[in-house]
Amino acid sequence: MTSLFPPFKTSNRNRQMVLAHRPVGSPQASDFALRETPVATPQDGQFLVRNLYLSADPVQRGWASNPALTPIDAPMRALAVGVVADSREPTIKAGDVVYGFLGWQDYALATRADLLSHIPEPRAPLSTYAGVLGMPGVTAWLALNDIAPPSEGKAVLVSTAAGTVGSVVGQIARQAGAHVVGLTGSEEKVARCVDRFGYHAAYNYKSGDLAMTLAQARPEGFDIYFDNTGGPILDTAIRNMARFGRIIQCGTAATPSWSPPPTGLRNEREILMRALTWTGFVIFDHVDRFGEAIDQLTDMLLAGQLNHDEVVESGMDQVTAALEALFSGTNAGKTLIYIGED
Amino acid sequence: MTSLFPPFKTSNRNRQMVLAHRPVGSPQASDFALRETPVATPQDGQFLVRNLYLSADPVQRGWASNPALTPIDAPMRALAVGVVADSREPTIKAGDVVYGFLGWQDYALATRADLLSHIPEPRAPLSTYAGVLGMPGVTAWLALNDIAPPSEGKAVLVSTAAGTVGSVVGQIARQAGAHVVGLTGSEEKVARCVDRFGYHAAYNYKSGDLAMTLAQARPEGFDIYFDNTGGPILDTAIRNMARFGRIIQCGTAATPSWSPPPTGLRNEREILMRALTWTGFVIFDHVDRFGEAIDQLTDMLLAGQLNHDEVVESGMDQVTAALEALFSGTNAGKTLIYIGED
Repeated sequence: MTSLFPPFKTSNRNRQMVLAHRPVGSPQASDFALRETPVATPQDGQFLVRNLYLSADPVQRGWASNPALTPIDAPMRALAVGVVADSREPTIKAGDVVYGFLGWQDYALATRADLLSHIPEPRAPLSTYAGVLGMPGVTAWLALNDIAPPSEGKAVLVSTAAGTVGSVVGQIARQAGAHVVGLTGSEEKVARCVDRFGYHAAYNYKSGDLAMTLAQARPEGFDIYFDNTGGPILDTAIRNMARFGRIIQCGTAATPSWSPPPTGLRNEREILMRALTWTGFVIFDHVDRFGEAIDQLTDMLLAGQLNHDEVVESGMDQVTAALEALFSGTNAGKTLIYIGED
Repeated sequence: MTSLFPPFKTSNRNRQMVLAHRPVGSPQASDFALRETPVATPQDGQFLVRNLYLSADPVQRGWASNPALTPIDAPMRALAVGVVADSREPTIKAGDVVYGFLGWQDYALATRADLLSHIPEPRAPLSTYAGVLGMPGVTAWLALNDIAPPSEGKAVLVSTAAGTVGSVVGQIARQAGAHVVGLTGSEEKVARCVDRFGYHAAYNYKSGDLAMTLAQARPEGFDIYFDNTGGPILDTAIRNMARFGRIIQCGTAATPSWSPPPTGLRNEREILMRALTWTGFVIFDHVDRFGEAIDQLTDMLLAGQLNHDEVVESGMDQVTAALEALFSGTNAGKTLIYIGED
């Protein structure tokens, strides 16, 4: 069991990466500042977590821009995996692994409401609980299986197909017997989709005529489209759906700003004529179901059926650069910052 | 029973309103021509129908523009209600009432595949089988109850709320205990929505700020939106949906032409953030369920729970003007042309 845990030091100081300025657009390293406070002591109902893996996620763009979610001078709202150091919450004990809204800091004072998952007996390396067994993996699992379960004979299209969410979607769909096609943004990612994540085919949406590519890839149309991008890719995918197809809207990465409101092709006629069903999925509506999804994903992972990539940087000072890299699309896997040895 | 049947004459000549020119945009009276042929004789598997009520429907714009559906010099593709005059189809007998794709003509040679409903024992006036008990009523019933069944406490928004489909949607939703709000295009129709179709409130989308109107009408957002228009009304409605709301796309009347492809606000972020589900509904996918819906709607109708308006013109020569009137929005109920006395 111990091999799943990385080594970590303890301290009585708590370094925090706080939001110094409200970002304009995507957050930059210069929007943050490092500060130190004493480690706090849990009160009744609270527990203290030693964070080990800080997560950098695209959703933090929205969190950083929202004063209600991340006040100025507060630690950046962030997901993290850590080990409980001390607890005055009866259902959580010291040594338990937890994952949730623990912030960019060494130590988090938390309550159960801050957690997405509580893993008293981890079966996989701790870092995976922030990635393939964390928000991205659970998003893929629940959104796909709840909204449009894949099965033999169905054709599934996935955008950001090599991403942390998309790569799990592709593998679940493939194992369910579906024909799985991925869209991604570079030739290197196309190769990873096919070689590592089991897509039957993958295409670089930046090269060639996407409408023609999709029509040739699946002349009879796609039954399921798992969309993380929105924008023109979505418009083209809608026009290549089979009748009675299902679209899962899980992200809108293609649109950098919604102010002023962007325009695009009208899609209601496609929804109507193809009798499509288009559903939005927000993972935070489904926190009560993380355990169930993690159990299933862990089985896949331990059976060698779930490839995944992690990019793990070391050191608290790397966290802001890691977030910047996310928005430039240069990352190649789930981005984590290991801070246990600091 | 006989009182449900209008009087009608028989003849050995068959007048047909044929498509003379392929229309550009909405069909005009000048696109059609009247011609006469002998009445045909059914062969095995066929039956001969004396049409009594010809229907004029918005969907005929699409049918008139499609050579595969309405060839030049063929009777205009149309729904109609008639009485079987002669039959060599074992399950259909002379005297039976039928409704389906019988065309703009006095007599139709038909097979079972041409029918939407077969009513051997009508319980309501024959004209209703083309309206409130025909395609519009059945569309309202199936789309609403299959995709987003209304219930107490839910708020339902309906566009083209005074139309043949919308007015049935409004009444079904009201009787299910929902709070029902209608959108329509004139003050007269607003009054009809409230006075005749039981909407709790109705608004003229052409006057005032629709976004503000909807926000004030239901500050907590709508749970169900039954949309017959698309376009900017749809965009505004989406932005006034409650989370987990459902949109039924049943028509796109607001957009007169889809070539070149029109643009509008991007809606995928609303679908995502509000976790909406948006489903397209095409009635012709559900022909096998007309009987079930007609039974339920007939019960409502006979119980006095289903108000409906018919505009019945008389004479084959009125049919093209009636279709023109549909596209100008001046009709005030289901448009039918009675041709039994011709």
